[in-house]
Amino acid sequence: MPRFALTIEYDGAPFVGWQRQANGVSIQQRLEEAVAAINGGARAVVHGAGRTDAGVHALGQIAHIDLARDWRVDRLRDAINAHLKPDPIAVLAARAVGEDFEARFSAIRRHYLYVIDNRRAPLALNLGRAWHVKRPLDARAMHEAAQSLVGRHDFTTFRASECQANSPMRTLERLDVRRDGERIEIVASARSFLHNQVRSMAGSLEHVGSGKWRVEDLALALRAKDRARCGQVAPPHGLYLVAVDY
Amino acid sequence: MPRFALTIEYDGAPFVGWQRQANGVSIQQRLEEAVAAINGGARAVVHGAGRTDAGVHALGQIAHIDLARDWRVDRLRDAINAHLKPDPIAVLAARAVGEDFEARFSAIRRHYLYVIDNRRAPLALNLGRAWHVKRPLDARAMHEAAQSLVGRHDFTTFRASECQANSPMRTLERLDVRRDGERIEIVASARSFLHNQVRSMAGSLEHVGSGKWRVEDLALALRAKDRARCGQVAPPHGLYLVAVDY
Repeated sequence: MPRFALTIEYDGAPFVGWQRQANGVSIQQRLEEAVAAINGGARAVVHGAGRTDAGVHALGQIAHIDLARDWRVDRLRDAINAHLKPDPIAVLAARAVGEDFEARFSAIRRHYLYVIDNRRAPLALNLGRAWHVKRPLDARAMHEAAQSLVGRHDFTTFRASECQANSPMRTLERLDVRRDGERIEIVASARSFLHNQVRSMAGSLEHVGSGKWRVEDLALALRAKDRARCGQVAPPHGLYLVAVDY
Repeated sequence: MPRFALTIEYDGAPFVGWQRQANGVSIQQRLEEAVAAINGGARAVVHGAGRTDAGVHALGQIAHIDLARDWRVDRLRDAINAHLKPDPIAVLAARAVGEDFEARFSAIRRHYLYVIDNRRAPLALNLGRAWHVKRPLDARAMHEAAQSLVGRHDFTTFRASECQANSPMRTLERLDVRRDGERIEIVASARSFLHNQVRSMAGSLEHVGSGKWRVEDLALALRAKDRARCGQVAPPHGLYLVAVDY
């Protein structure tokens, strides 16, 4: 059975998250319905690289599928998209991959973006697309503090209690904070992340930016290896899965 | 009565447009309700610089209001915003102005942005925020053609039949088309525009970009001074009122 990798964009707002769940419509479910529709109706499984939580967006989620017959990749993309309407999920590209390709396990790096809209006024056009923080944030202090998290560490402090990973050790390759006007972008790259890790780091960085925490408090929180020392978990609607490297 | 100018952002999607209408909720109505609520309940009139159509967005609409008493501008902004929830309308800033200030008539220049998302896949995150055009567009040809519209002209071709302006003459100061990846931005600046002028120009520029029109066909359409020669009117959800100069 020919295997294809799909690059997928979605607005996470109307969904219960990537993964199929009994309590509502997931992105995976809608994709599996669309793939089944173009694949002769047989049940399809869509394997994603990252299981984004409810409300989290994607600019470049990757998933793989096995199909009953071969397809031209542009026709495959268009056919799946036709069955996704009117949901805010779009297959940006499809490519043929070998049967050893696994969207989740073959990935060597994941890139996330966390967006904060740092202004006094409520959000109108960016509503549901960024975390609205009214307090003025010092993005330079956030960036400085963020560097203490880069490298191989025990990220227990920044890990959801329900995280199912075997180990809290992760190697954070990059954690950059930059400001462009009222928009603050936090860019995080790693081979893999713990559950809620990016949102936990973003929430704690907000404490540094607002002055509630000193720059060095972030490193102290990391070293404590204590979930209770996490500043806060930033809301899901500011988070984007940007890209996955193979 | 002290007069204030408000800078306003909104997502046009859920509204019938800027102006109060019997057939649905307008941005003006929601603002007038919010201003009345903070102004002792008396009926308030909110005078906007531009009457955007249904679905058109604003990053910096300007409006003026007269209030019963003086206000600190930051408190005024916050108070009105508190009464706009949960609608996607936000007062970004308020400033005190003289009683000769008229949001509409004192304006010397209006800036609009028209956004095209030029890609094969449907829009997910940009749904309702850009015009989705699947055909590949040549943004350079569009920019070249656009220059023939800059200057003082009779814009009858690019004017809605229901336009109520006394004259079809307008001076277009700027019409730039630029591409950034799959995003094409059309920036238009003028003292004032005719009804549907920007959307009519954007729709005709799309014909140039797709090759349906030659570059010189846009100038010919202008010179024809014939509404029937307008290529098409681009959809409202790609249009943003960006700023108004005084």
